[in-house]
Amino acid sequence: MGGVIRIEDPADPRLDDVRNLNHSDNRPDLPGGKGLVIAEGPLVVGRLFASRFPVRALVGFPAKLESFLAEPANRAAVGETPVYAVDRATLAEVAGFDMHRGLLAAAERVEETPVAEILESARTVVVLEGVGDHENIGSLFRNAAGMGVDALLFGNGCADPLYRRVVRVSMGHVLRTPFAHFGGTYTTWQRELEELRAAGFRLVSLTPDASAAHLADALVDAAGRPWDKIALLVGGEGPGLTEHAMRATDIRARIPMAPDTDSLNVATSAAIAFYERQRSLR
Amino acid sequence: MGGVIRIEDPADPRLDDVRNLNHSDNRPDLPGGKGLVIAEGPLVVGRLFASRFPVRALVGFPAKLESFLAEPANRAAVGETPVYAVDRATLAEVAGFDMHRGLLAAAERVEETPVAEILESARTVVVLEGVGDHENIGSLFRNAAGMGVDALLFGNGCADPLYRRVVRVSMGHVLRTPFAHFGGTYTTWQRELEELRAAGFRLVSLTPDASAAHLADALVDAAGRPWDKIALLVGGEGPGLTEHAMRATDIRARIPMAPDTDSLNVATSAAIAFYERQRSLR
Repeated sequence: MGGVIRIEDPADPRLDDVRNLNHSDNRPDLPGGKGLVIAEGPLVVGRLFASRFPVRALVGFPAKLESFLAEPANRAAVGETPVYAVDRATLAEVAGFDMHRGLLAAAERVEETPVAEILESARTVVVLEGVGDHENIGSLFRNAAGMGVDALLFGNGCADPLYRRVVRVSMGHVLRTPFAHFGGTYTTWQRELEELRAAGFRLVSLTPDASAAHLADALVDAAGRPWDKIALLVGGEGPGLTEHAMRATDIRARIPMAPDTDSLNVATSAAIAFYERQRSLR
Repeated sequence: MGGVIRIEDPADPRLDDVRNLNHSDNRPDLPGGKGLVIAEGPLVVGRLFASRFPVRALVGFPAKLESFLAEPANRAAVGETPVYAVDRATLAEVAGFDMHRGLLAAAERVEETPVAEILESARTVVVLEGVGDHENIGSLFRNAAGMGVDALLFGNGCADPLYRRVVRVSMGHVLRTPFAHFGGTYTTWQRELEELRAAGFRLVSLTPDASAAHLADALVDAAGRPWDKIALLVGGEGPGLTEHAMRATDIRARIPMAPDTDSLNVATSAAIAFYERQRSLR
């Protein structure tokens, strides 16, 4: 690897990739106007280097860089990527807030894998509609990765999965777990779901509706055998899935809830569905 | 109910119960040195009024109070509780930050129900050890309430369940779902778990350990019948349960995880266990 370059001037343009991180998702100078992919902390930075996203710069406090680069695997992954050492006050001024973790990396976005290609090898996918909360999307990635979901597919109204906060909450799993947005061939996005059905997926909506089937029954056929391929649909907190999306699925499934309580958080509901899916396959 | 009193002076002592809310958990002037119970927003404020905690004051922007009190049930619940109307700038100065929800209530703490009394009618309880994160505790309450868990019991090293952030994240379920701390009769808290066993509970530890039993198998007996009474033990993120606590249980249970991923968030793991428990009882 190259050497570590010490930077003391917060205005140094070599730090531009980690400048104003609170507003980093809006970068009209980059293709698509979206920001770079930002990873924070040694675990997630390591996952960024191991990912398909080409890293442009590694930035950190001297001690944090030293400890990160002391791992031979990390040193090899960093290779010729520029490495900039900055002190805490300088980084705070550049990033726009006190970045106490003291280690971050910025990478370029890459073209998404098409949905069709993802479906070739997937057996369990989750489809998101109207999930606008970054923390929920991050948790969905973490839970999906942890329980063997093959991919996340994005319908209408979802927040950007590569936003900085999503990367952090997902613990970097958004950098490893395949995801894709539907192509937008149709006027109503729900018709895109036909692509899943054509690929042999059983489509299951998650809903708090008490008249829906028990989740455990929805993931198996009439003989109690698990469906070979399952696509679980989840909607945003509050409105849930649109009626249009639910109508496009084969069955509506519910997690039984105690009376007079609130529906579960979307990432929690999804985690339960992922668990039930793995349970049905054991 | 009494009238709504307009207050314009941020120094007015009648607003002391909602002063400096970022530091409100430390109140040396109150019994035990802990803060009042603070509820924010109409849903949680309504649940506070319906709870066992005696409300001392309702405070809000004039329009928020009006809309809250327009509900006859809320008006009846408020009764003779003092109601103070303040504008946004005044409330921000009193609370110490911009409280955009514009409606909050403060109540007194009450004595906890003893563990023994809670166990008399409970069939499913969750026991927490070392869960220090307020958001996790709040989510645990929300998930427990949603999936019919009867009570939360606190072992060593947990954060205060009545902290403001817990109340908010739990959506007020901490005000409705029974909880208690173990009495501290023994030097090591894990011996308190004997009280659960004496009451007929099967004790189940949740652990990511791959050699543990599948969760689904841990909640039923050898014949596949659900145990009558189950106590689920969960530990804090990172360290998990202590070995001492796990040794005091009847069985260790795991949620199967994909290789090379991170363990689930504690509230998410618990939600899956609550789901499996209800599933075993259906």
